[in-house]
Amino acid sequence: MVVSIDLEARLSAYREKVEASLGELVTKEMAGPSAEAMSMARTVLLAGGKRWRPVLTLLAHEAAGGSPSEEVMDLALAFELIHTATLVHDDIYDGARLRRGAPTLHIAHGDAQAIIVGDYLFVLGFGLGGRAENRIVDSVSTTCTAIAAAELKQMRHIRDLTTRPEDYDEIVRGKTAGPFANACAAAAILAGASEEHIENLKEFGMGVGIAFQMVDDLLDLTGDLSMGKPRGTDVHEGKMTLPLIHALTVLHGAPRQRIAEILESFNDAHWDELTELLNEAGSFDYTRNLIETHLINALDRLRRLPPTSARELMEGLAEMSLGRKL
Amino acid sequence: MVVSIDLEARLSAYREKVEASLGELVTKEMAGPSAEAMSMARTVLLAGGKRWRPVLTLLAHEAAGGSPSEEVMDLALAFELIHTATLVHDDIYDGARLRRGAPTLHIAHGDAQAIIVGDYLFVLGFGLGGRAENRIVDSVSTTCTAIAAAELKQMRHIRDLTTRPEDYDEIVRGKTAGPFANACAAAAILAGASEEHIENLKEFGMGVGIAFQMVDDLLDLTGDLSMGKPRGTDVHEGKMTLPLIHALTVLHGAPRQRIAEILESFNDAHWDELTELLNEAGSFDYTRNLIETHLINALDRLRRLPPTSARELMEGLAEMSLGRKL
Repeated sequence: MVVSIDLEARLSAYREKVEASLGELVTKEMAGPSAEAMSMARTVLLAGGKRWRPVLTLLAHEAAGGSPSEEVMDLALAFELIHTATLVHDDIYDGARLRRGAPTLHIAHGDAQAIIVGDYLFVLGFGLGGRAENRIVDSVSTTCTAIAAAELKQMRHIRDLTTRPEDYDEIVRGKTAGPFANACAAAAILAGASEEHIENLKEFGMGVGIAFQMVDDLLDLTGDLSMGKPRGTDVHEGKMTLPLIHALTVLHGAPRQRIAEILESFNDAHWDELTELLNEAGSFDYTRNLIETHLINALDRLRRLPPTSARELMEGLAEMSLGRKL
Repeated sequence: MVVSIDLEARLSAYREKVEASLGELVTKEMAGPSAEAMSMARTVLLAGGKRWRPVLTLLAHEAAGGSPSEEVMDLALAFELIHTATLVHDDIYDGARLRRGAPTLHIAHGDAQAIIVGDYLFVLGFGLGGRAENRIVDSVSTTCTAIAAAELKQMRHIRDLTTRPEDYDEIVRGKTAGPFANACAAAAILAGASEEHIENLKEFGMGVGIAFQMVDDLLDLTGDLSMGKPRGTDVHEGKMTLPLIHALTVLHGAPRQRIAEILESFNDAHWDELTELLNEAGSFDYTRNLIETHLINALDRLRRLPPTSARELMEGLAEMSLGRKL
């Protein structure tokens, strides 16, 4: 997939708007009673995330016929703050030491502080999101309880070699794709879109979100340091990513036995053998095909909206998010 | 202070309404995708808290001229859920093993689960609170970020013998009294009260909340197992409660030196000596006087509202919350 330089530049303009508003919020908080909390939070908040969720919010709002407003930016920031809150808390129990190249908050300041700062970010996000109409508040709330449910389920399936594709689907829809779908749907509601287009944008977000997670799964096994994610983080943590679930499902006999052994006590000496087994099972191709299917479905939904500059950028964004080296 | 049996019974009716609505919410959540999260959360949620915050919300709403409604109950439950979320997270970093007589969530299920379940409770609470008008949402959000700020400050002052009464005041207003004040103010806004009465109810909540925390501080030193709080929890954790701050401020020479030594390496053999030093400094009396002052101010504010059954119950509630054995 080729994303034109023009598209990149136009997307950057949205990203910069988000950065500017986020910067203003940080400055405002630093001047108030939450200065201590924000001084810890801002490191991770401003550490150069891709801002997929807020940018998608702004674009979906525009694609649904809305005009730029304070309300939609509040919503966009709410999603970024809530997302960052989950990252801060995830990093604690994942024992992660680095996030976007810098020490994680709990490593820099301690677990207690990281729990509180995560709560603070949640609250700040909900304060902004809570200003929207009730239907949006309900949608945000449901999305967030679904994140928690999915995280608990994912935890139960750590190193569980019997994890089924349906379990994976449920976890991904709750944890990664739900927030994308919600960002698009909430933006469409705010823009006063028809029920049909709210649904189309929601499904676009869901499809892109699922594909996004699957790309992440592949990167964990193939590695691409330029994406900021060291190879094998998930494998070492015992997370059941899609290629692994696929291989465990289709392999039989000795190869099935062997991949199970490898996953139960994984270390870096196993990389070549694991890659070979995943190739033998066709798990990389299977995952790539699924990514393409979800992307095609997402774009099909998106193209039911009137053609606009925002819609074009969303197509570009979807392709970029998936165009990370596979 | 004597609270009549009649008042007790009438207050119980409000508490039971809260319990019933909370029970319905739990049942609804247990039937949905968040069943796993709620199955862990409900133990602490239904473990017989006093429900000060939601009962105060209902009463303040009525005292301000509102009639019972779904909206005010949503708000009342929101405050209880958010409060419980902070308890679950506090218990993790305080290393608390028991809460309301049962094992804390992180002891029963693990830290990761407790972080996520706390987040889930926050989100559930904000989902309910976020349905209110923007002014209320802003008030709830500000109150919650202030809780986080106060918790960080409290943490910085652990075992800090130079903690000043002003630091204590700031921490208590943020962490304990702010949520009481906010519950009363938000209820009054929802009831459509005048600015004057919103302010009166807010100050009532603030005064009661401050007094409530000071009673808690005393109980930590004098002990009263019937209140469910074992003596010395705060002292062992190095929390700087008001009697300790007072004693460290007024004592000089050898007694000051000795109380500092005791607090720096406290163990149960020090109880008699610590109590004697606190008596010598007049710290118990000082704290009791301050409690009374805050109570009197709170009741003065409350009595500016028209006399109603709800107002009478709030007076009773204030006295009960303070009538815990000192």
